[in-house]
Amino acid sequence: MNLTNRKTIHIEWGDCDPAQIVHYPRYLAYFDACTTALFKKAGLSKRQMLKTYQIVGIPMVDLRASFKAPSRFSDTVIVESEITEWRRSSFCVRHRLLNKNVLAVECFEIRVWAVTSEADPERIESKPVPREVIEMFSVGNNRSPAHQKSRRNKQ
Amino acid sequence: MNLTNRKTIHIEWGDCDPAQIVHYPRYLAYFDACTTALFKKAGLSKRQMLKTYQIVGIPMVDLRASFKAPSRFSDTVIVESEITEWRRSSFCVRHRLLNKNVLAVECFEIRVWAVTSEADPERIESKPVPREVIEMFSVGNNRSPAHQKSRRNKQ
Amino acid sequence: MNLTNRKTIHIEWGDCDPAQIVHYPRYLAYFDACTTALFKKAGLSKRQMLKTYQIVGIPMVDLRASFKAPSRFSDTVIVESEITEWRRSSFCVRHRLLNKNVLAVECFEIRVWAVTSEADPERIESKPVPREVIEMFSVGNNRSPAHQKSRRNKQ
Amino acid sequence: MNLTNRKTIHIEWGDCDPAQIVHYPRYLAYFDACTTALFKKAGLSKRQMLKTYQIVGIPMVDLRASFKAPSRFSDTVIVESEITEWRRSSFCVRHRLLNKNVLAVECFEIRVWAVTSEADPERIESKPVPREVIEMFSVGNNRSPAHQKSRRNKQ
Repeated sequence: MNLTNRKTIHIEWGDCDPAQIVHYPRYLAYFDACTTALFKKAGLSKRQMLKTYQIVGIPMVDLRASFKAPSRFSDTVIVESEITEWRRSSFCVRHRLLNKNVLAVECFEIRVWAVTSEADPERIESKPVPREVIEMFSVGNNRSPAHQKSRRNKQ
Repeated sequence: MNLTNRKTIHIEWGDCDPAQIVHYPRYLAYFDACTTALFKKAGLSKRQMLKTYQIVGIPMVDLRASFKAPSRFSDTVIVESEITEWRRSSFCVRHRLLNKNVLAVECFEIRVWAVTSEADPERIESKPVPREVIEMFSVGNNRSPAHQKSRRNKQ
Repeated sequence: MNLTNRKTIHIEWGDCDPAQIVHYPRYLAYFDACTTALFKKAGLSKRQMLKTYQIVGIPMVDLRASFKAPSRFSDTVIVESEITEWRRSSFCVRHRLLNKNVLAVECFEIRVWAVTSEADPERIESKPVPREVIEMFSVGNNRSPAHQKSRRNKQ
Repeated sequence: MNLTNRKTIHIEWGDCDPAQIVHYPRYLAYFDACTTALFKKAGLSKRQMLKTYQIVGIPMVDLRASFKAPSRFSDTVIVESEITEWRRSSFCVRHRLLNKNVLAVECFEIRVWAVTSEADPERIESKPVPREVIEMFSVGNNRSPAHQKSRRNKQ
């Protein structure tokens, strides 16, 4: 089973445009924060994760979003996030934003596990996602250091 | 033939994240400005368009973007934008962001021609795109007031 | 005594710039949300407040901020906010952002109680702040509807 | 005499809030871009400047802004920027945003010339601004490589 995170977001005045609804790039910023929160729930704070695994980040390579209903400032919404697929050096994340229990925005991300190129520090390259990272997203494993340790010992 | 707009964008420090590359929600903000610029090239300033046609905007309903190469602060990029399809009350826009002549980001938008619902001022409804708006995007028509005038007279 | 609000903010990756610290315009966006939260604590949700008092907002007219220490993604900070002065049609707000109990940013805002001009709908005018709004910020008054009602009855 | 830069900015839909005016944190993002453009006019592209002088940026330490008149999407504004004072390791920038020749926003920044602390890579320290950087802002010097070279040779 996949680890799921639910994040509550208060829609701010400054997130909305002259049509009085959330300006859609702000949804993408929300979802970026939701992906960060999902990793944190798995035990991986973003700052710590970058240090531990010597990555520059988990940049987006492909993004799809459908906006089904608008949200407005002073609304409080819930975003449910989960990783739907792990590939070799990339992974897929799904976010579902619910406003008053109605699915208002759905977003699918493909991100890569990225490092600075050794050949050219201005370039970014993908790298295989470490197995231990993937395992932290299996429900039952997260926030259970003792269990994780024993599993690692078996490898 | 479709009207195309080319917009030059200077990547700002504040558009970039700790990985030193553009934070992807900012690309979507760029593309929103590019759609606005495309309408302006067709003769429709956004403010004037909202007044003339009594719409609240042209909100996004579906978005796809693929990020092929990163861009960085101090880069100057070009975005080519065009409307690829007109539907009844929606339309499709394609943006291609080029950095040093390489396609770095591609984005497909579906937007609706939107008005405030008469039944409920908190709701937004789509409405058929006026034929004269669509015609302004046919190359040959734009920025040719005399021609447009004669065409309108014939209707 | 003044009503004070404390808001916890998680610093996001997308709020930070290539120097790996919060890009300062994002602090101003945080503080805008903190002013909104302070009004909400007083009993005034922004959306409801705009409807009740027929205002277009509480736009900024003067802003001062000093940035004493940087904050970084994955930091969790606290912002303490209070209204330090009520003037006829404007008011002063102070925000103090604390990172690990150290004052990292201090911000002073002057905002106006604003309505659309009747003469010109494109203009915005200030208007006296209603006495009942000001009273909601006196500690002891907030979130005490019965008390507020009796006070209002006496006027 | 001080070098001055004039930057034309098109106000975007996404820069405006539900009151249909620019959301003030966006003005600060504009001014950050204007400071970058002023340095570029002096001959210092931000990316190149960071490499040449091994700095992490020119972060803000103090900010004052007064908002005298609102601007709206589809407005085109001009920002005039200049450095008003050089101190040892900091400097003052003034921005004046003009909308239809009227001063709409005025902003005063104090920024520091900043490097990563050698003792603690998570800390940022200020450092004296190099004399040659300051000289590039004296009118008559900028964009005159031959002259700059002869001046450097004399040092």
